[in-house]
Amino acid sequence: MNAEPVRSVDVLRFDDRGLLPAVVQEASTGEVLMVAWMTREAVERTLAEGRAVFWSRSRGELWRKGDTSGNVQHVEEVLVDCDEDTLLVRVHAEGPACHTGERSCFFRRLET
Amino acid sequence: MNAEPVRSVDVLRFDDRGLLPAVVQEASTGEVLMVAWMTREAVERTLAEGRAVFWSRSRGELWRKGDTSGNVQHVEEVLVDCDEDTLLVRVHAEGPACHTGERSCFFRRLET
Repeated sequence: MNAEPVRSVDVLRFDDRGLLPAVVQEASTGEVLMVAWMTREAVERTLAEGRAVFWSRSRGELWRKGDTSGNVQHVEEVLVDCDEDTLLVRVHAEGPACHTGERSCFFRRLET
Repeated sequence: MNAEPVRSVDVLRFDDRGLLPAVVQEASTGEVLMVAWMTREAVERTLAEGRAVFWSRSRGELWRKGDTSGNVQHVEEVLVDCDEDTLLVRVHAEGPACHTGERSCFFRRLET
């Protein structure tokens, strides 16, 4: 990955709710842990604090992952997709990502 | 991953546009390639055909990945997240996922 980095949050394209999806991946294994949503402030705090901060759509507030559960996600890097409307947050996760206790939220196959 | 599989598309929770986000991951390497959107029909066709089929928000039509570009994504498995509103599509991708020619759409870091 040799492309020039994106230097400003200004280029990000949030949807009409002010949100964009963030895919969270365990950097050490490549496992996709979860998808959550970020506001501009959540992106800024994630970069500034080095910990994943999301927007909770159900609670309508910023959600600093691990504050309640202890399952902090330490951010290694944040990648931007080609059309600047999705992020890939590569983390080192403490504990499970999922509220069910599973390591990843994607623990079931769809088999119709 | 020993949980019971999800046996019906009926459990999926599409948003008010009838869409849900689908993370596409290269199964052989774990690389996250792209995030796209699926309608119910896109999910059904992905499962039936074993090829990733999305909904193009810009064109307003089903988008069978690779029909134009040749960059088909052969589906190994589709995983459902804990609250049934996001999919993880594990694929074997032919060629690059990104319209820029990059293998993954996530080829730039966000570094403010």
